[in-house]
Amino acid sequence: MEKLLVAKIGGNIVDNETALTRFLNDFAAIDQPKILIHGGGKIATRVAEKLGVKTEMINGRRITSKENLEVVVQLYAGLINKNIVANLQATGTCNALGFTGADANVIKAVKRPVKNIDYGFVGDVTEVNADRIHQFIANGLTPVFCAITHDEKGQLFNTNADTIASKIAVALSDYYEVSLYYCFELKGVLTDINNKDSVIEQINSKKYSELKEQGIIADGMLPKMENCFDALNKNVSAVHIANSDFVNNQETVHTTLTL
Amino acid sequence: MEKLLVAKIGGNIVDNETALTRFLNDFAAIDQPKILIHGGGKIATRVAEKLGVKTEMINGRRITSKENLEVVVQLYAGLINKNIVANLQATGTCNALGFTGADANVIKAVKRPVKNIDYGFVGDVTEVNADRIHQFIANGLTPVFCAITHDEKGQLFNTNADTIASKIAVALSDYYEVSLYYCFELKGVLTDINNKDSVIEQINSKKYSELKEQGIIADGMLPKMENCFDALNKNVSAVHIANSDFVNNQETVHTTLTL
Repeated sequence: MEKLLVAKIGGNIVDNETALTRFLNDFAAIDQPKILIHGGGKIATRVAEKLGVKTEMINGRRITSKENLEVVVQLYAGLINKNIVANLQATGTCNALGFTGADANVIKAVKRPVKNIDYGFVGDVTEVNADRIHQFIANGLTPVFCAITHDEKGQLFNTNADTIASKIAVALSDYYEVSLYYCFELKGVLTDINNKDSVIEQINSKKYSELKEQGIIADGMLPKMENCFDALNKNVSAVHIANSDFVNNQETVHTTLTL
Repeated sequence: MEKLLVAKIGGNIVDNETALTRFLNDFAAIDQPKILIHGGGKIATRVAEKLGVKTEMINGRRITSKENLEVVVQLYAGLINKNIVANLQATGTCNALGFTGADANVIKAVKRPVKNIDYGFVGDVTEVNADRIHQFIANGLTPVFCAITHDEKGQLFNTNADTIASKIAVALSDYYEVSLYYCFELKGVLTDINNKDSVIEQINSKKYSELKEQGIIADGMLPKMENCFDALNKNVSAVHIANSDFVNNQETVHTTLTL
């Protein structure tokens, strides 16, 4: 089975021009089928403030209003996605094509069901069109996804980029031996958030349970870990949490997840 | 030779939700290969004002600064393009895929050469990758272009949407019998701008020269007409300037151009 690299870069990489440029050059140089998913970064918050669009929070959770959605579509699908695509094209070795879930109907979602909180225009992924994405890759293209999905009824949604990366990796496992890389500004999952070198190099499901109980893995890292284990449980070959330098330098210390 | 429809909608259609929805529904219903190019509308000016980005003018010509470019990329490639794609997907009959020129490297451009005026980040189209666009269409997709191009060196450009439509129509003439429609809020080219029914139904090159001399065709209509005749001179089968209702109702009075 042919290998496929699925890499997700977080918002802090997108915000850091030096780190982003280095990552994109490394990524473009990888001579195998690949997919990039990018987060949003802080620019959406900055632009929303300038435009006078308020960010509503309920119980500490961010709500995506109609106005917030317009801002994230502008920035994620517009400014960020197209600059990434143009910079990958500039390498001369990566024929990038930018996507939201609406483009070629590749990622369908439903509005997150309202239980205690109405998150607004937040979409939960229901289907990834692996056939279509595979076709683009087979035609020599490198898909670049922002974290925007749609409901096939004309509504766009804000969606978690980690989840999109996991769902894409799982869906493409029908066609490829998939490695999923979550790349960010740290070196991996840390035992001590104040010590950047305290990387936990191996985490399996048992160890994950222990780290959760000990409170070492908490907050924003929890949904990321859930996405990792979900991918491993659904035939993704390898999942790594690593620094954005890792993609082209796999000897660097990082976190590898196993079942 | 198979027929291809290339339709361009102007900014006033993009700005008018009723007209845009009707156009997109009509466009989606056309059962033949097709391409859409959309203009920007006034929203970019409004958002630029809110963001405190000034629009510089030199000798009455708009200059695209770095900050202006960021705004148009956000709005044209982001908000407008993705809402059009999502709304076409919602029809269930049009598998739309949004593009800038950087995506899949489909439209290359160079920064407009500085003679008397430096227009800033404005790109002149140098090449349309007809093979690649044809491949997308052959795979059942409907390309939707915003008026953003790139230079293959990482720089995005603001580009005239009428010109992009003409260049795409010409390039695709190697594969298809192409009809090019410039759709806007009027019924066609008018002899009297104050009389919306004064449509000139046929314009050939001789008549165009006369209308220019008489000052009936002037200002913004001149580059549009140049794009029309350029397309006709380069093997595009038919060129029309018409109301946005025209695409699915070809009995409506409109302007047809011939050599």
